[in-house]
Amino acid sequence: MVNKAVCIISGGMDSTLCGYIAKYEDQKDIIALHFNYGQRTQDRELKAFQEIAKSLNAIKSYSIDLDFFTAIGGSALTDTRIDVPKEGISDDIPITYVPFRNGIFLSIATAIAEKEGANSIYIGVVEEDSSGYPDCRERFIDAFEKAANLGTKPSTNLQIVTPLIELKKEDIVQKALALNVPLELTWSCYEREDVACGKCDSCRLRLKGFEKAGVKDQIPYL
Amino acid sequence: MVNKAVCIISGGMDSTLCGYIAKYEDQKDIIALHFNYGQRTQDRELKAFQEIAKSLNAIKSYSIDLDFFTAIGGSALTDTRIDVPKEGISDDIPITYVPFRNGIFLSIATAIAEKEGANSIYIGVVEEDSSGYPDCRERFIDAFEKAANLGTKPSTNLQIVTPLIELKKEDIVQKALALNVPLELTWSCYEREDVACGKCDSCRLRLKGFEKAGVKDQIPYL
Repeated sequence: MVNKAVCIISGGMDSTLCGYIAKYEDQKDIIALHFNYGQRTQDRELKAFQEIAKSLNAIKSYSIDLDFFTAIGGSALTDTRIDVPKEGISDDIPITYVPFRNGIFLSIATAIAEKEGANSIYIGVVEEDSSGYPDCRERFIDAFEKAANLGTKPSTNLQIVTPLIELKKEDIVQKALALNVPLELTWSCYEREDVACGKCDSCRLRLKGFEKAGVKDQIPYL
Repeated sequence: MVNKAVCIISGGMDSTLCGYIAKYEDQKDIIALHFNYGQRTQDRELKAFQEIAKSLNAIKSYSIDLDFFTAIGGSALTDTRIDVPKEGISDDIPITYVPFRNGIFLSIATAIAEKEGANSIYIGVVEEDSSGYPDCRERFIDAFEKAANLGTKPSTNLQIVTPLIELKKEDIVQKALALNVPLELTWSCYEREDVACGKCDSCRLRLKGFEKAGVKDQIPYL
């Protein structure tokens, strides 16, 4: 029986755990999907993705270049003229928001799923800790799933699976440890590729998660 | 008042008329958007797009490379190992179908609209003459619009406009002539870039449209 899942894997903790859930809890064959979209830490994230795809025994890997994000701009993640904030997390939509990023990622994942005959797409969005990105919310994912099924062949019939959507960062760390996820292979920092800065929103969320879980993060920090 | 529209323009008749409707009927400032996705006639279509964007006095143009469509494959439009059919149009989903192409196009258009502060996206999909592509149907477009608005900032509030969706090809030719659309700049052929083949589905639909409208197509045919 065909039981393939397209897993979007950025190289961070969330998407890596998501891939492990697809593989070991849901017994899927993994088609690993990664995007290079001109984000500051693109090379480091790609390295993490490759190591994680290997650790998942992915049956196929797609690493897709989306150079146009740099041309669209408007985000501190892809425009080096805008500073990555290090003052802590606010309630607003942050300047690291990349316009409709998950919409673009999911639409490409949909095309790949249709081509490969996969019946699900896994994406590691987290609603509560998502720093207010609108494209991480459950109602967006549900609406997108409807659109994807209306815009593909009737036989495609996709489910978009978000196993992390209701988790907090400390739950993610704990669940990852329980599933033997190699968290030391993952990369979260928005700013640096050699050692993590420890101060950007993404580092802050990661470190808080480890701290609350009572575990030490094994990656190097500045 | 801001009244910008992102217009997806392939370089064919439908999307060109769609741009003219946005500009001259709906009084929009045009942000012209084109995709190079490894389709066989990519260079000829890009040339058509550039000439059409100029004729529309577009305030901005985006020509976006999506090389990954070739890697995904599965369509005669992007995989040169699959022949473009020339036997006439059938009722099935044709081999020229590119998985979720309009979904990907609309998701990128959504990101650009959000960045540019545009409040609408124009796309020249035609339901009846669309040769059975699932991502040309009105219910897909409606579902996508919902997803786009849930996945972007509240201030974005986009409308996806499909002025051609209920038209037949002869209506499109007649409406284009009435609006002084430079149809001689447009390119429809799936197969050739020098002169149109006259036999692929896209040429057949175009020629039938001109014939029923009682007008001669000015582009060169084989």
